[in-house]
Amino acid sequence: MTDRSPAALAGRLLAGEVGAIARAISILEDGSAGAHEILKAAHAKSGRALLVGVTGAPGAGKSTLVDSLAAAYRVEGRRVGIIAVDPTSAFSGGAVLGDRIRMQRHSSDPGVFIRSMATRGHFGGLSRATSDAADVLDAAGYDVVLIETVGVGQDEVEIVRAADCVLVVLVPGLGDDVQAIKAGLLEIADVYVLNKADREGIDRLESEISMMLSLAADPNGPRPQIVRTVATAGTGVDLVVGAIASAREAAERSGTAIERRRERSRFRLVELVRERILSWAAGDAAGAGALEAAAEAVHRREIDPYEAADRILGAFAARRGKVGP
Amino acid sequence: MTDRSPAALAGRLLAGEVGAIARAISILEDGSAGAHEILKAAHAKSGRALLVGVTGAPGAGKSTLVDSLAAAYRVEGRRVGIIAVDPTSAFSGGAVLGDRIRMQRHSSDPGVFIRSMATRGHFGGLSRATSDAADVLDAAGYDVVLIETVGVGQDEVEIVRAADCVLVVLVPGLGDDVQAIKAGLLEIADVYVLNKADREGIDRLESEISMMLSLAADPNGPRPQIVRTVATAGTGVDLVVGAIASAREAAERSGTAIERRRERSRFRLVELVRERILSWAAGDAAGAGALEAAAEAVHRREIDPYEAADRILGAFAARRGKVGP
Repeated sequence: MTDRSPAALAGRLLAGEVGAIARAISILEDGSAGAHEILKAAHAKSGRALLVGVTGAPGAGKSTLVDSLAAAYRVEGRRVGIIAVDPTSAFSGGAVLGDRIRMQRHSSDPGVFIRSMATRGHFGGLSRATSDAADVLDAAGYDVVLIETVGVGQDEVEIVRAADCVLVVLVPGLGDDVQAIKAGLLEIADVYVLNKADREGIDRLESEISMMLSLAADPNGPRPQIVRTVATAGTGVDLVVGAIASAREAAERSGTAIERRRERSRFRLVELVRERILSWAAGDAAGAGALEAAAEAVHRREIDPYEAADRILGAFAARRGKVGP
Repeated sequence: MTDRSPAALAGRLLAGEVGAIARAISILEDGSAGAHEILKAAHAKSGRALLVGVTGAPGAGKSTLVDSLAAAYRVEGRRVGIIAVDPTSAFSGGAVLGDRIRMQRHSSDPGVFIRSMATRGHFGGLSRATSDAADVLDAAGYDVVLIETVGVGQDEVEIVRAADCVLVVLVPGLGDDVQAIKAGLLEIADVYVLNKADREGIDRLESEISMMLSLAADPNGPRPQIVRTVATAGTGVDLVVGAIASAREAAERSGTAIERRRERSRFRLVELVRERILSWAAGDAAGAGALEAAAEAVHRREIDPYEAADRILGAFAARRGKVGP
């Protein structure tokens, strides 16, 4: 019989066992029993993988690009983890379906592990779960972890922002609203991937990006690269792999690589603290009581929301005080 | 000389003075001095306005629809506040531009107040700021507050989710990725607005939605309505106004209206608690020290992130304990 203890599971995931990896990520995602022990083991062995964030507007072809990148890394013999962050699927369950379809494409290759992450409940936790999953894949020996997310929404942008290398995928000829989304992503890019480069408008798109870069770029900082692809045909994917490697090298040389990893630790902690206190306020009996009583008083307009938040925090601190720090 | 104290500002905003409203929202958005006093005054007088959330995929024509709705409510003599939530403009400053363009359109009408909200910094606060702005507009005597946001990203969906009435704007003929976004929004709709109804594919879109509703709908719950519009031409906008009114009536009758407002108070508190503790961890000297020390220890892999989060929370509780709850 398999030993299903967290310690045994951690051992199996560090050995690269696919079933154990999947189960560990689920436990971390749900925050169920053993989560801390598993994360502790994975985190201690992490720090080796290259984390690549891939983001862009809906319809830019991110999934296809990520799949092609995975294939290119496989040719180099590197193991690839893919984390597809789907902020919408909390409602629709869409992630699971997408997951299955993509799984089939790589099903014969044990060197590729694909996982979709969806939001759970009202209290976020998506970026925390994504970081945890990246640690697991890293510790399990995946050389490259590709984190893919739609580039809209502040949580979603934060998720990729702190990766070792950020690809922003753009396509020619989308509408005005989408242009606005692009604008929101431009400052976080290490590599601009101009996908669907066989389409009309690609030259204009490239000159827009170039112009923007020459206006905005820090003259002393590393200059983001621009690469054209047709991901559906595999065209230009090797150039993207090369651009990632050279962005990575430049970051190591300039010291920004380590600074980003520090920033990632900081952001991750902030997210964890948020989640801890909110799950207390929502789940713990005393916490739930404090939240409900405060919400009811706000609803009746007996107190204002700011005062109510202070009451909840006071209750939290008092309870922590009793247990000890 | 104008009395610029928070109390005086609160008095002027309750009297409906536009400059005071704008300034109050800015103070609440920034969390600067006087924020609590202003919110307290506004919150106490709020609860009268109808909050309508408008969401949908990029390119669905939300802004045009919101502007047309505002015009229709103005014809009825109702004052309208518009809060346009722009999650991307933290990077691009895009909100300010969009704001100005829209302001011009309604500039001659003191019965319409338009405000864009953007993310500030790494710690969220967008939904908190949006709730605060809605309280201000409500207390200042606006009868309808339209809250518009791109329907992607968990924060963005939460922002509209708890409105009194939620419009989900769909258009025919967008791509697969966009369909996935739609799916994420479908469960929160009171009214489906099928915009750009002069386009090919509108019949198919309507039958897709109808089918989905007949499969998914709670047979005892209120059935979401479907309305076709061409917002650019103003076509169907009156039907949307009617659908909002009848959704609202049904919710009042069934008791879900009050339940939603309770849920809104609860969600808002959770967001405030999150913001409070994170601004402590990032801004207060002791808090910042605790965060930095913990992040550095995680970075060096001396402790794991979960343990680090507990250390920060312990430091927070210890500090709160000293000050008293």
